[in-house]
Amino acid sequence: MVTKDLNQLELDADIISNKFNPLAFCIKLTAPSGSFAMIADIISKSGAELGDTKVLESNQETVQREIHFSSTTIHAREIISKLHDLPGVHINDVINEVYTTHIGGKIGIQLKTEVNNQKDLSIVYTPGVAEVCRTIQKQPELVYNLTIKKNSVAVVTDGSAVLGLGNIGAAAGLPVMEGKAMLFKMLADVDAYPICLSTQDPDEIVAAVKAIAPGFGGINLEDIAAPKCFEIEQRLQNELDIPIFHDDQHGTAVVVLAALINAIKVVNKKFENLKVVIMGAGAAGVACAKILLFAGIRNIIVTDTKGIVYTGRADMNSAKEELAKLTNPEMIKGTISDAIKGADVFIGVSGPNLLSVENVKLMAKDNIVFALSNPDPEIKPEIAKPYVRIMATGRSDYPNQINNVLCFPGLFRGLLDSHATTVTEKMKYAAAKAIASRVEDYELNENFIIPNIFNKQVASAVASAVADAACEDRVTKVIPEVDLKLI
Amino acid sequence: MVTKDLNQLELDADIISNKFNPLAFCIKLTAPSGSFAMIADIISKSGAELGDTKVLESNQETVQREIHFSSTTIHAREIISKLHDLPGVHINDVINEVYTTHIGGKIGIQLKTEVNNQKDLSIVYTPGVAEVCRTIQKQPELVYNLTIKKNSVAVVTDGSAVLGLGNIGAAAGLPVMEGKAMLFKMLADVDAYPICLSTQDPDEIVAAVKAIAPGFGGINLEDIAAPKCFEIEQRLQNELDIPIFHDDQHGTAVVVLAALINAIKVVNKKFENLKVVIMGAGAAGVACAKILLFAGIRNIIVTDTKGIVYTGRADMNSAKEELAKLTNPEMIKGTISDAIKGADVFIGVSGPNLLSVENVKLMAKDNIVFALSNPDPEIKPEIAKPYVRIMATGRSDYPNQINNVLCFPGLFRGLLDSHATTVTEKMKYAAAKAIASRVEDYELNENFIIPNIFNKQVASAVASAVADAACEDRVTKVIPEVDLKLI
Repeated sequence: MVTKDLNQLELDADIISNKFNPLAFCIKLTAPSGSFAMIADIISKSGAELGDTKVLESNQETVQREIHFSSTTIHAREIISKLHDLPGVHINDVINEVYTTHIGGKIGIQLKTEVNNQKDLSIVYTPGVAEVCRTIQKQPELVYNLTIKKNSVAVVTDGSAVLGLGNIGAAAGLPVMEGKAMLFKMLADVDAYPICLSTQDPDEIVAAVKAIAPGFGGINLEDIAAPKCFEIEQRLQNELDIPIFHDDQHGTAVVVLAALINAIKVVNKKFENLKVVIMGAGAAGVACAKILLFAGIRNIIVTDTKGIVYTGRADMNSAKEELAKLTNPEMIKGTISDAIKGADVFIGVSGPNLLSVENVKLMAKDNIVFALSNPDPEIKPEIAKPYVRIMATGRSDYPNQINNVLCFPGLFRGLLDSHATTVTEKMKYAAAKAIASRVEDYELNENFIIPNIFNKQVASAVASAVADAACEDRVTKVIPEVDLKLI
Repeated sequence: MVTKDLNQLELDADIISNKFNPLAFCIKLTAPSGSFAMIADIISKSGAELGDTKVLESNQETVQREIHFSSTTIHAREIISKLHDLPGVHINDVINEVYTTHIGGKIGIQLKTEVNNQKDLSIVYTPGVAEVCRTIQKQPELVYNLTIKKNSVAVVTDGSAVLGLGNIGAAAGLPVMEGKAMLFKMLADVDAYPICLSTQDPDEIVAAVKAIAPGFGGINLEDIAAPKCFEIEQRLQNELDIPIFHDDQHGTAVVVLAALINAIKVVNKKFENLKVVIMGAGAAGVACAKILLFAGIRNIIVTDTKGIVYTGRADMNSAKEELAKLTNPEMIKGTISDAIKGADVFIGVSGPNLLSVENVKLMAKDNIVFALSNPDPEIKPEIAKPYVRIMATGRSDYPNQINNVLCFPGLFRGLLDSHATTVTEKMKYAAAKAIASRVEDYELNENFIIPNIFNKQVASAVASAVADAACEDRVTKVIPEVDLKLI
C-alpha cells in the first residue's frame, strides 16, 4: 500500500531514517569463544532483529560467524560500531543483503522446452515456427494459444509516483517492477515483464502501451501519478481489447473493500448504514470511493490536503470533480475534523501522521481505522488503538496488513484465464469478496480481518471469482482451440 | 538466413508445399505384431525421416507404438493415408509437434531468488526495494548493476518482414521472436524479451522503442522491412545510449563475412583481389556490401530485381543510392549475367531459384557461391555443385549453413558485458573473425567453412571479441561498482 500525492520531502526523510523500515544485513566476524551471547545482546538491544547465524570456522580460542539481522541502516551502523569496540572482536565483512540480492536484477527468462539439436531447433525456430506464424496470421485469435500472450502481463510505469518515493523516474522504479513480476510469478504463475517508460507525457504513454500491446494479455499500470493515471487507464482501456488495470488505484481499492467486508461482520454493521471518510483523493482514494459506492455504501466523504471534496470547490481536477458528485451526500464542507464526526470508517490513503487522536475520538462507536500510508501510517496504531475497535495498516509488523499483493496476482490470473477484454466493477467486487472469504468465520476477529499475503489460496480464489465475473459480464473473448493435428 | 523483399506469393507457395521444409509429427498407432518394418518402410519411402519410436503397449497379437518422424505436411498426409490402408493397423492419434510445442508459448519469467517469507519479501519488494530505487535515482548508471537492465535485450519487430513470410503483422511474428529469445538464453545467457509492435510507421516505431528503452541494455530489431529498417536503426542509435542491432542486416552480414574469411583461405585468394556479386539489395544485401567493404573487398556489384545497382539508376531508394556510390567501381550496368562474369564470389540474399546454372558458369575459377534464400536457395546445391568450388546455404541439411544464430547471441553478450553504447563496424568485423576462428585450420575444407550452430564455443568467442572491439573503439560506458556494504 502506498500513497503518492504527498509532501515529498517529508516522505524522503521518513524513508531514510524511519525506524520502521528494516533492511537485511549480514555481518561476518571473528570473536572470542563464548562471546556470542554478548554479541546477540548488542544486536537485539539496538532495535535489530537477529536472524540466521552460522559458524564458519572455530578453534580453541575464536569463532568465526556469519550473523544475519534486520535493522535500519542507522541501527546497523550503531551495531557495527558497538561490536567493533568489543575486545577481541574482528569484523571481517558487512553486507547489505538488499543490495546483494538486487545485483543483476531479480528476474530472468526461462525456456519452456529444451533445444538440444537440429530437430528441436526446427520445431521452436525455423522452419517449423513459420507454420505457426502463418496459422496466427490466418486466425489472429490463435495468438492466445500459440504464443506467450495468454500468460503475459506488462507491468508498465513511467516512474512518476514510485512507492512513497515520488517522481524518481522509470529506471529508478525498475526494481519495484521486478519485485512485482516476482510476486506475479510466485503467487499466480503469471509471466509479468517490467516496462519502464522514458516518457511521462500521457499521450506518449498511451501510444507506447498501445504499440507494445500485441504480445501481452493484460497491462498492469504501476506507480503512475494521479490525476494523469485516470486518463491513461481509461484511454488505453477504450482503445485496446486486453484488460488494463492500474494497481495503485484498484488493487488498493479491492483489498480495502475486502478488509471492510470482514470488518463490518466483526462490528455487526451494514454497508448501507456506514459513514466512511477517505483521506486522500489521489489514485487510491478515488478508486476506494468508487468501489465502496459500488459495494453499496452511500455516505462517503473524501478529503484531500485542502479539506473536504465537495461540488463547487475551487482548484479540483476532473477526477475530484467527479468524486464530488458521487460522494458527500450531505454537502459537508471543512476539514477532516468536520468530516470524521460520527464516521464508522476512516480510510487513510494520504500521508504519515495526518490523523490526530482527537479526530479519531470523534468517530462513531465500534469504529474502523485503515491507516494505509506506508511506511508511516496516518496515525500510529499504538496511539490510535485505545480509541479504535478495528485497526489496519499497510505494514507487515501490525495485525491486518492491507496489501495489494492480495489482489493483483490472482486478479490477472483470472483475467488471463477468462480472456477478459476489460476489468469491470463486478470483477473487482468479486475479487474483494474472494479475498475476504479466505478468512474463515471461526478465524475472524478484530486482529484478523484480512488473509496473510503468503496465503496461497487467496490468488486462486481471486482468479476464479474474477473469471466467473468476467463471464457474467460478458467481457471475455472466445478463443478457438488449436487443432493440434492440423495436417 | 532469410530474405525479405521478394515475390510474396511465390514464397508463400514454397513454404506451404516445400519438400525441404520438414515439420515434426508423432503418430500413435496399434498394429499387428511383426508389422513394424513395413510401417518404417512406408514412412521412410514417403520422404520422411523416422525419429524416436516407443512401444506403449503390446500383447500377443498387437503392439501400440508412438512413432516420431519429420516430414512436410503433405508427406505426413500421404503417410497417414498409407498406414491407414494397412491391414490391422489402427491410427489412434496424430500430433503435429510444432503446434504442441508452441501451446502457451516458449518462454516464461523465472525468479532469480526465492521469496518464502516476510524477510525475503522485505528484501525484494517493500520496504527494502525502496532503498535500491533511491540509490539508482541518485546514481543513474547503477541501474546496470541493480536491475535486469544489464542482461536484458528487447527483440523488437513490427512484423513487416517475418522470415520469408512477408508482412504478416506483429502478433503473427511473435513465435519467431520467442524462438529468438530462446536462442539468446540458451547460447549466451542473455535475457531477451519479445516486443511486438502494433504499428509499422517508422516514427511510431522509433517513439515506442525509445519509450521502452530504460529497462533494456540493448535492442535487437528483427524482421522489419527494408528500406525503413535502415532509417529506424539509425535514428534509434542516434537517440539512445544502448546498442541497436538490426539482426536481418548485420547478423547476416557478420556470418557471411565469417564464412568468406574461411572460404578464401581454402581457395587461397585475397579480399583485395576479389570480385563479389551480391544479389538482393534489401536489409541483408546492403549490410553485406558494407561489411565486405569494411573488410577490404574493393570490387562489389549489387543487383536487385531491376538489375545492377549503379549511380544514376532510376527508382532507387536512398539506401540503394548510397550503395551505388560505395560499390560497382567499374560502373557496370545490366543484369545478373553482366555482373557475374568473372566474379569470385556470389552472395544471394534475394529469393528462390533466381540464379541460373549458366550464370554460375560465368564465374571465375575456384568460385564461391553463398545461396542464402530460405527455405529455397537462389540455386539448388545439387544443380550448382559441379560448377562451384565452395557452396553455402542457409539450410541445415547441406554443408556450410550460414545462420545468424552464430552471431546474435554472442554479439549481444559482448555488447552487454562491455556496456557498449553502440555497434561499430569494428565490432561486427571482430564478431565475424571470431566465428571464422572456431573452424580450426585442420578442419577447414570446402564443406566446412563455418562452425555448427550448436558449437557452444562460438558465442563466447564472439562475445569476447565484440567486448574487446567495443573497448578499442571507446564506445563503452563506465559503470561504477555497487558498494555492497552501503551502510
